Amino acid sequence: MNYQSFFSRAASGMQESAIRKMGMLGSRGSDLISFAPGYPDPASFPWDEFAAIAADGFKAREASALQYGPTRGYGPLVEAIGGVMAARHIPSKTDETLVTTGSQQGLDLIGRVLIDPGDVILVELPTYTGAITAFTNVQAQLVGVRQGSDGIDLDDLDAVIAGLRAAGRRIRFLYVVPNFQNPTGLLIGREKRLALLAAAARHDFLIVEDDPYGELYFSDVAGPADTRPIKADDSEGRVIYLSSFSKTLVPGLRVGWLVAPAALVAKLEIAKQAADICTGALDQYIVWQCMKSGVLDAQGPRLRALYQQKRLAMEHAMRRELGDVLSWPEPRGGFFLWASLPSGMDAEVLLEHAIARRVLFVIGTAFYVDGAGRGAMRLSFAQPSVARIEEGVERLATAVRDALGALERQGGVKGASIVSVPGMTS
Amino acid sequence: MNYQSFFSRAASGMQESAIRKMGMLGSRGSDLISFAPGYPDPASFPWDEFAAIAADGFKAREASALQYGPTRGYGPLVEAIGGVMAARHIPSKTDETLVTTGSQQGLDLIGRVLIDPGDVILVELPTYTGAITAFTNVQAQLVGVRQGSDGIDLDDLDAVIAGLRAAGRRIRFLYVVPNFQNPTGLLIGREKRLALLAAAARHDFLIVEDDPYGELYFSDVAGPADTRPIKADDSEGRVIYLSSFSKTLVPGLRVGWLVAPAALVAKLEIAKQAADICTGALDQYIVWQCMKSGVLDAQGPRLRALYQQKRLAMEHAMRRELGDVLSWPEPRGGFFLWASLPSGMDAEVLLEHAIARRVLFVIGTAFYVDGAGRGAMRLSFAQPSVARIEEGVERLATAVRDALGALERQGGVKGASIVSVPGMTS
Repeated sequence: MNYQSFFSRAASGMQESAIRKMGMLGSRGSDLISFAPGYPDPASFPWDEFAAIAADGFKAREASALQYGPTRGYGPLVEAIGGVMAARHIPSKTDETLVTTGSQQGLDLIGRVLIDPGDVILVELPTYTGAITAFTNVQAQLVGVRQGSDGIDLDDLDAVIAGLRAAGRRIRFLYVVPNFQNPTGLLIGREKRLALLAAAARHDFLIVEDDPYGELYFSDVAGPADTRPIKADDSEGRVIYLSSFSKTLVPGLRVGWLVAPAALVAKLEIAKQAADICTGALDQYIVWQCMKSGVLDAQGPRLRALYQQKRLAMEHAMRRELGDVLSWPEPRGGFFLWASLPSGMDAEVLLEHAIARRVLFVIGTAFYVDGAGRGAMRLSFAQPSVARIEEGVERLATAVRDALGALERQGGVKGASIVSVPGMTS
Repeated sequence: MNYQSFFSRAASGMQESAIRKMGMLGSRGSDLISFAPGYPDPASFPWDEFAAIAADGFKAREASALQYGPTRGYGPLVEAIGGVMAARHIPSKTDETLVTTGSQQGLDLIGRVLIDPGDVILVELPTYTGAITAFTNVQAQLVGVRQGSDGIDLDDLDAVIAGLRAAGRRIRFLYVVPNFQNPTGLLIGREKRLALLAAAARHDFLIVEDDPYGELYFSDVAGPADTRPIKADDSEGRVIYLSSFSKTLVPGLRVGWLVAPAALVAKLEIAKQAADICTGALDQYIVWQCMKSGVLDAQGPRLRALYQQKRLAMEHAMRRELGDVLSWPEPRGGFFLWASLPSGMDAEVLLEHAIARRVLFVIGTAFYVDGAGRGAMRLSFAQPSVARIEEGVERLATAVRDALGALERQGGVKGASIVSVPGMTS
């Protein structure tokens, strides 16, 4: 049977995530070192704390940990999230909060509730692939805005908006990852955050602020003052703020949340009812217990130290092995290093050399909505050990030299030179 | 701010689930007895087995239990599901299997991958509300087919199909719950199942077979031969089969699955990537361990005995208290008893009397796509204890007498009489 005629228009446009594909490749290979998936380090997981929480909950026959629960989220967890939000300078009420089955579900629900086919959504160039697919799956038209060294470029934003308005197009929302963006690791400056709010008010669009990495700043180059959410200054109610426990606790418990004006949350909750009824009860129970007992708070400093050490290891190795041919903005937090390739080098070609050398990354094109990105790659330093990072960068350096050699033989490049990635204005 | 202008067309049509609303009411009230939500009995949960599994997994630092995992599902679980399917007479391969975040997510993904706005989907009258909302949220046009005492009415199916074809409409799929349907508890007869496959082939539509209750037959009136899935005889590849561990283990682990032709599963998997990346790793790990260690197999006989006892308690109390005014098809498995009200009595009015008497049910209209159902209610006997079932039916009987008295005072009914529920042909 041929099922083509049964697929919806949305399904016909659905593409497999390039990152997930790479992730699968990484999980299969023998002695592959993968910088591809944005997986946290399992050494950071609070194993013993989870064991104690689960043992107590099962012993107490905590029915709320195994039964269906409210779509809005497990009551005590929703309350506790209010505390996290307050610490991030975002006062919120329970009717402005929705627990989601990971932050990805939040993006999916937002897409379904706010986007009709053909609607214009603004995104950064490059941006998180999961957002691209969530919004593309409801047939949005994604329009990219370039970034500078401190995040989204306001001049380009103005130009893009002017172009769209001239064409009679309405913008539904701007999607941004202000803190240690996936994939670039960039941080949007404080003034820019306020300017985005002003632009949203001026042109009547919403802002979807995705903040999974805000707690993971590297204290040698950033601090909590740098990560103040856009939502903290949202007096008008234009910002939908998303966050997650995937990076601060574990991703295998699928628990994220969003905070937004109550009228939006009410609709998103109805959409969630039909999407999965409710988020996993055991997952929510464990997360709440971690919040209550201080486990979550204790993770912050531990994770910041762990990932800072790994990023330093990667940067050190990169400078030593590849400093003359690659360039990258210094990651100030998060999981990722975003590297520009030598002029003329295609990330897809480099990836073939890298696979031959048993190292993986994600090619830049996965993150662009305008077809750019062939001259960039995303490296995640979060999961591998320091020793594996060093070994992986050495392999990558060999792969880059292989690719450069091939290029030179083809006359495609005269010696190595550093160029900017398309879409990065500086 | 007014957010109305930001909502998508899909969002504008989204309605809160009547059952979830009732569920919330039930969880708030003091000494309410709720027959409303289809929640399993927490006394059936394998608490100690879960405790042992979690303790072992955390102690062994099982990274796959807390990390991101494959969108398709945790490998060992996908393999094990193949065994469950074989026992249900459905040979399946791993590329025909997708683990979902509860069976509800399967319905949601199917809606997104197979339905464009305005597409015709056939459903039973009445049918599961979660399917109604999942398909309505992608703007399907749901068309109802009546049921008889052994499930969907083939004559009405033919008539509905003929009417649609005459109007030039194409049917995408038929959604059915063949085993102990939610809400009616009905079982589709063996011959009818084969006839549905023939109809699907003749008119070129797919069948979405939802089977969460098949294991929960009551051995005094049904057996495994009665629950053989439609998919077991699907030689053409027209059936998408869904099932779940929510009723056989616990609902708080959000783990369901679907089996379908590989080409459909590939597309559903891509849709799932953007919906929630992957199903919870800890949930899948626990479910798999329950399968491996025989916990799941041991649940079957326990659950059948438990729910049979509860259904007998409810039927016994109903016959004693309400046998002269209500009628219902005998549930042969599952969680639900579907009762027809006396002529002229409106379920919504009865519900007000019931709430005053501190007992809850779900009104019939929640399950109909054609506006019918005012003369019926769904009672779930799964969660309350036998004592609470008896007490709840006594309260319900008082409420019915209250409602009958009010009706008689209005001259709306001359004594009680039993009538069929709209949509039930027998």
